[in-house]
Amino acid sequence: MFSFAHPVRQIVVASECQKIFTNASSRIISSVRPSSTLAEPSQPKVHTDSIPGPKSLALMKELEKLQSIGSVQFFVDFNNSIGNYLCDADGNMLLDVYSQISSIPLGYNHPDLLRAVQDSRNAITLVNRPALGILPPKDFVNKLRSSLMSIAPQGLTEVQTMACGSCSVENAMKTAFIWHQRRKRDGRDLTPEETESCLMNQPPGAPILSILSFKNGFHGRTLGALSCTHSKYIHKLDVPSFDWPIATYPMYKFPLEDNEQENRRIDDQCLAEVEDLIEKFEKKGKPVAGLIVEPIQGEGGDNRGSSYFFKNLQKIARKRDVIFICDEVQTGCGPTGRFWAHEHWGLESAPDIVTFSKKMLSGGYFYRSQLRPDQGYRIFNTWLGDPSKLLLLEKVVEVVKRDNLLENIQSTGESMLKGLKEIQERFPNHVENARGIGTFCAIDLATVDLRNELIKELHKSGVHCGGSGARSLRVRTSLTFTKKHSDIFLDRLNYVLTKMSTS
Amino acid sequence: MFSFAHPVRQIVVASECQKIFTNASSRIISSVRPSSTLAEPSQPKVHTDSIPGPKSLALMKELEKLQSIGSVQFFVDFNNSIGNYLCDADGNMLLDVYSQISSIPLGYNHPDLLRAVQDSRNAITLVNRPALGILPPKDFVNKLRSSLMSIAPQGLTEVQTMACGSCSVENAMKTAFIWHQRRKRDGRDLTPEETESCLMNQPPGAPILSILSFKNGFHGRTLGALSCTHSKYIHKLDVPSFDWPIATYPMYKFPLEDNEQENRRIDDQCLAEVEDLIEKFEKKGKPVAGLIVEPIQGEGGDNRGSSYFFKNLQKIARKRDVIFICDEVQTGCGPTGRFWAHEHWGLESAPDIVTFSKKMLSGGYFYRSQLRPDQGYRIFNTWLGDPSKLLLLEKVVEVVKRDNLLENIQSTGESMLKGLKEIQERFPNHVENARGIGTFCAIDLATVDLRNELIKELHKSGVHCGGSGARSLRVRTSLTFTKKHSDIFLDRLNYVLTKMSTS
Repeated sequence: MFSFAHPVRQIVVASECQKIFTNASSRIISSVRPSSTLAEPSQPKVHTDSIPGPKSLALMKELEKLQSIGSVQFFVDFNNSIGNYLCDADGNMLLDVYSQISSIPLGYNHPDLLRAVQDSRNAITLVNRPALGILPPKDFVNKLRSSLMSIAPQGLTEVQTMACGSCSVENAMKTAFIWHQRRKRDGRDLTPEETESCLMNQPPGAPILSILSFKNGFHGRTLGALSCTHSKYIHKLDVPSFDWPIATYPMYKFPLEDNEQENRRIDDQCLAEVEDLIEKFEKKGKPVAGLIVEPIQGEGGDNRGSSYFFKNLQKIARKRDVIFICDEVQTGCGPTGRFWAHEHWGLESAPDIVTFSKKMLSGGYFYRSQLRPDQGYRIFNTWLGDPSKLLLLEKVVEVVKRDNLLENIQSTGESMLKGLKEIQERFPNHVENARGIGTFCAIDLATVDLRNELIKELHKSGVHCGGSGARSLRVRTSLTFTKKHSDIFLDRLNYVLTKMSTS
Repeated sequence: MFSFAHPVRQIVVASECQKIFTNASSRIISSVRPSSTLAEPSQPKVHTDSIPGPKSLALMKELEKLQSIGSVQFFVDFNNSIGNYLCDADGNMLLDVYSQISSIPLGYNHPDLLRAVQDSRNAITLVNRPALGILPPKDFVNKLRSSLMSIAPQGLTEVQTMACGSCSVENAMKTAFIWHQRRKRDGRDLTPEETESCLMNQPPGAPILSILSFKNGFHGRTLGALSCTHSKYIHKLDVPSFDWPIATYPMYKFPLEDNEQENRRIDDQCLAEVEDLIEKFEKKGKPVAGLIVEPIQGEGGDNRGSSYFFKNLQKIARKRDVIFICDEVQTGCGPTGRFWAHEHWGLESAPDIVTFSKKMLSGGYFYRSQLRPDQGYRIFNTWLGDPSKLLLLEKVVEVVKRDNLLENIQSTGESMLKGLKEIQERFPNHVENARGIGTFCAIDLATVDLRNELIKELHKSGVHCGGSGARSLRVRTSLTFTKKHSDIFLDRLNYVLTKMSTS
């Protein structure tokens, strides 16, 4: 039973609020007074001719008076969004397989989260944002343990919170730089030359060092992170950049099982290039202090390196004393069916640093204890994250475990990938390279235009999806996305492709 | 009436919750059930021998298992903090003249903010964080107008939200770079060389451009922002930096009224250096696209440029087509007695970009409409800020206006500065250069050791204060800080200095 008409102002997460979730089917109910219930609709519902509809268009016109609307797709009515359904300003109910660029862990208006923010004990955390680095709240250690540390990658015993993905990456890189220089100093005291030159942006205090990154990678948009980002020109154009090494990320031939030998060759080539670049930049006087890599290139085309690739990449990093930063901002917190995508690689030990944000609700990174800077204020800013986000994350972790959401994503993902492969066989001229793990899936369209048209047509058919790289369609569901939702998605995708291929 | 004993879990901001505030005296009451009242104490209360006390020390030991505690001062009991009083984990009640590095606008647990987060209509904003750049909530334009735009600097008609201060500065700089290159292209199409080279961090797509900043300035700690930060070596050591121009910020002789001629000479010298650096870097092949400056160097020693300096700095920027970025992350939102510190300069028109964060609760920047990038996704990231912070800011603005808090800060600040000058006369061997505007005040101590000892002793006497630059003590109050609070602060400062000067 779904009602658009319930008055928003009356949403109360009362104690009788119920959530029913099974692996087989999900039904999320947020109780809105005894007589009214907001639950997921049984299927998408679009009643405007196109999306954005007239109300979104009118709001875009208003927003354009205050800022660029070049990237705005439509406006959202979050009051009436529920579970895996996004309600737009015109009242269309879209099945959401993009979840705010992969950043909604439990769908919209999850009752457990609503309850958490309405718990009067939590109000204090919501209004008093501390300067965490100097004056943490007295429950901070407990909150770190019940949220972040409860899902820390094995072997990474320390954590630093941050406000967003870019800041997480920037500070992970700084951690690598600081470690590199400390190792080089080998216990000797700082020289006045070091402490003075750094203030003027000059070596030796501000050393010339580099971070190795990969083509098509995405790590954020602040100037350090952006120097490691190579996905689309629009992200980088006109912005000065560090001249740092950029290696080739493995781009395999599909289907993987039929091209093992060729793909192994590709892996070896990429690994050799990494070693070569590390040497080259050492000789160039820009030693590589760290390398940063995504388990799956979530913005640059959903490319996914093999276990072989990552195991050997880690070996190279160790051999060369290069800090291995695994950027899990998009892959972290469950969408691949494990909390961390790198767990699929079968490494002997975790990467040196693992960054997170998005679905984790708080930014930050886990790191090896050896990397902890030996003085305060090295990694620091005013807020250093936000305890109000840990409060939500604590609840997210609890729900993921209680409701077996990782298992849900594993089985939903298997079913979805099977369906995508069937679609690929049905539309061989349009679709190729169906791939993914968990519900972190993608397909390639024949051209960029076709991909863009597909996203538009999917909107009209009631599915909100996103692009990745030049011509990929990416799926980024919340963790409450079940086989039922996946079937609707596949059905609409099939319908739209049929229409497109016959027009 | 103040009670430590009230059980935290029972804090309810009931409808009968009252706030009483007059310019003359402030008394903030958060009702905790009819029988219990949490209000500011009449004065600080310290019952441990030192701060951090035993409970904070025990928590530090626990936190140290998970991260560096090098910068942690003590742990905070936010449940029992109220108004301008910070309660530490040991139950000490400290008068807070530092307000979480200047980032608490209305003191702790302000009833209006507590009410806002407990309003069930707002729960939806607290749990559904959107990807603002693609899918803004349908009330976004209204929220921008009622919060940020209602206090926008005159002439700055556009606003971009961000998550934190560093991201605000980084994106303000990007806005300057993008504008600079667009102007240079003068309407011609992008070349393939530009779109391809930028992906590999190379010119012409990733051009070699610079941002001019000032010695002792602080603008954040991500790699771009950090290249403009020159306050303390600990912020910068071991981190690679852009080789950008760094000019001298005026450091006046005090008292200002006795040194007008000398200080004018200092201004002229600094301005000449700016022009010189712009020319030099143009010739060096690193043209200056923007300059960034703080109205008061809030981290680097509370140095404050004159109106003459800033008026002429703006003239130079205009003449040279350099974007003028005024960093108001620390000075913005009222602590100088106006919403924006640059309003004190009497400029003909606002700076091109004004960045904010901290007391504004949301990061971001206001900018001239001409600077809007002409394509989407140029200034972008997943979250682009957080509507739940705008919700709080909307309330902050409302309270600041309703309770005349800017006027309060003006009169409190006058009284405080007068008191600081008296103290300076009383302790001429210890204290000098009393200065400030609003309650954004500072004094210099004779040495760094003396300053650090003073902060420690002030803690013991019940005042929480912060350092700035090499040997300054900085005052950063919330906007609800009244003359009554200021008198207590001055009294304790006087007491501690007396003790220190006789020991």
